[in-house]
Amino acid sequence: MSIEQFSVRGRLADTGEGITGDELQLAARNHGIPLEALRYDVTPAGLHYVLVHYDIPAGSAATWRLEVDGCVDQPMSFGLTELRAMGRRTVRVTLECAGNGRAALQPRPISQPWLNEAVGTAEWTGVLLSDLLENAGIRSDAVDVVFTGADHGVERGVEQDYQRGLSLGEALGSGAIIAWEMNGDPLPPQHGYPLRLVVPGWYGMASVKWLRSIELIDHEFDGFQNAVAYRIRQEAGELGTAITRIEPRALLVPPGFPDFMSRHRFVAAGTVTLEGKAWSGWAPIERVDVSTDAGVTWHPAKLDAPGNDEFAWRSFSHDWAATPGEHVITVRAVDSSGREQPVEAPWNRGGFANNSAQRITVLVT
Amino acid sequence: MSIEQFSVRGRLADTGEGITGDELQLAARNHGIPLEALRYDVTPAGLHYVLVHYDIPAGSAATWRLEVDGCVDQPMSFGLTELRAMGRRTVRVTLECAGNGRAALQPRPISQPWLNEAVGTAEWTGVLLSDLLENAGIRSDAVDVVFTGADHGVERGVEQDYQRGLSLGEALGSGAIIAWEMNGDPLPPQHGYPLRLVVPGWYGMASVKWLRSIELIDHEFDGFQNAVAYRIRQEAGELGTAITRIEPRALLVPPGFPDFMSRHRFVAAGTVTLEGKAWSGWAPIERVDVSTDAGVTWHPAKLDAPGNDEFAWRSFSHDWAATPGEHVITVRAVDSSGREQPVEAPWNRGGFANNSAQRITVLVT
Repeated sequence: MSIEQFSVRGRLADTGEGITGDELQLAARNHGIPLEALRYDVTPAGLHYVLVHYDIPAGSAATWRLEVDGCVDQPMSFGLTELRAMGRRTVRVTLECAGNGRAALQPRPISQPWLNEAVGTAEWTGVLLSDLLENAGIRSDAVDVVFTGADHGVERGVEQDYQRGLSLGEALGSGAIIAWEMNGDPLPPQHGYPLRLVVPGWYGMASVKWLRSIELIDHEFDGFQNAVAYRIRQEAGELGTAITRIEPRALLVPPGFPDFMSRHRFVAAGTVTLEGKAWSGWAPIERVDVSTDAGVTWHPAKLDAPGNDEFAWRSFSHDWAATPGEHVITVRAVDSSGREQPVEAPWNRGGFANNSAQRITVLVT
Repeated sequence: MSIEQFSVRGRLADTGEGITGDELQLAARNHGIPLEALRYDVTPAGLHYVLVHYDIPAGSAATWRLEVDGCVDQPMSFGLTELRAMGRRTVRVTLECAGNGRAALQPRPISQPWLNEAVGTAEWTGVLLSDLLENAGIRSDAVDVVFTGADHGVERGVEQDYQRGLSLGEALGSGAIIAWEMNGDPLPPQHGYPLRLVVPGWYGMASVKWLRSIELIDHEFDGFQNAVAYRIRQEAGELGTAITRIEPRALLVPPGFPDFMSRHRFVAAGTVTLEGKAWSGWAPIERVDVSTDAGVTWHPAKLDAPGNDEFAWRSFSHDWAATPGEHVITVRAVDSSGREQPVEAPWNRGGFANNSAQRITVLVT
């Protein structure tokens, strides 16, 4: 038996097929943000979503090396002490998994089964990627920048280190940082300790964790995670389009208190302040609309003042005059590029970028 | 519609029924330890298992109050500053969810669908519960001690604050502490910030988080979590037996590297050191046996020296001469009370205390 035969291929769930044992294994080890934690502007580390493709590698800040080579004037190698000496910048960034919303699609693509909770916002501290690259000297034949993590595994038959590429323009223009701190502490193991890339505005797959190598190459990167995995497709065989920036989304803190099993909510009648967070990787949030009648009527939410960080979520609130009975609350975000979060996003085969509107069922008593 | 009607009742999955949407909601917000994190003797906070029945409450260390009343000479109320002045003790404790292993049972009880990863070990710092109670003066009519958290919700139609009771003997004799630190930092929100109970040796349901009240009562506590929820039953209507201490279990760090979707493992032929952790809430671990042929033959693992903390897991290792082909690795723990972890634990209707042996499928290449 070979590695390829021993690996599981992607497929769609059959009609009515429940979540599989393989999906459950992923759901049990990875996790989303408990939605009540949307109350924090900066998500505490253990509540921020986590998606790890393979295993969390063991590494030590004392001995970690980052290699920078390929189309550079001077190949370089950095320890954490040397990186810290190059500068220190902190940026607040909302990261969301590209597969967020996957498990709500019909038919359901079988992979990590996110509902709508694969998001979090942290303050990442490190050195600007552009400073690092300019230090090494970018040669004129450089086209793409390839980031390699220390995490190693097999995906759809292909053995690999986790690896993603950005075009040189994206790498220099995105404000990406090489980070060694999350919320003022060393990175937790599951968030890339001791070193990771953070690409503001992009879905999480771009922000390579356990970063050990940056290579500039003279052609377009065609590695698995860029060319095969993270693409929007309708059919299995087609080329598809690359997944890049985060589509607009708003999520509410579910009001009142929950039923343990169904997570249905119970709220006392009267004025209820609904609050939540909205974000987009394309442009600042411009409007959030809330509906308390399952989308029949919509009301503009009050937006808090924007912060200094372009790709951190924005808080919003809406006062709801809750009357007894069952209600379905839903919410939509619009950004200043004109992108509107749909009530129901179009289906795609990998289950990516599904920003369909959140629905919360509430009993007002 | 009433609160009771709006709440979901417990049930068993139908034959072949996949994990349900309700189970997935719980799996997406709660999480286990990624098994590779068994390499840490003390689990970093964000990797320790988390099970929250309702929502994580918002609370502040500056204003939090713990009330101690009922059958005491002197009802008392404590802020965190006053508790810190009473003493400071750190204890390393392995906590495991009573529902660990539930999703592997046939038929499957529908609730939080743990496989085998609902465990973690932390260093908890606080004041001894027995010191606190003796300070308040235990009256001779005290029978049970009731711990109430700030988390509020509905479970099987019953609205409640999360509440658990211990007998007075258990409360005084278990070495339980009222903790405000985890691994040297303030408790993370999901682990009970700012204050929680930790009962060494007991399944996690006893260690009430967001602790706001301790009441001594003159009769046996019959609240939902003691009398209804956490009991071993074969049939829905029966009284059942209370769940208390943690049954022995061993878990291995899965060797080699994984397939993303199936978590099958790939290992290079040669000597492979298998390592893991074993624990029991009844007595110290006395033996761990490893099998690399799906339980046909067993080999005693090498146990590391025990630590100072009676209810923290113990490390073990076993050198395996891995030969090419497919292998199933499995492991069992035995404690000094004579309790042996079974290959397959007996079924019960709530899916509790299922310590059936872990099985890891490995392809050696």
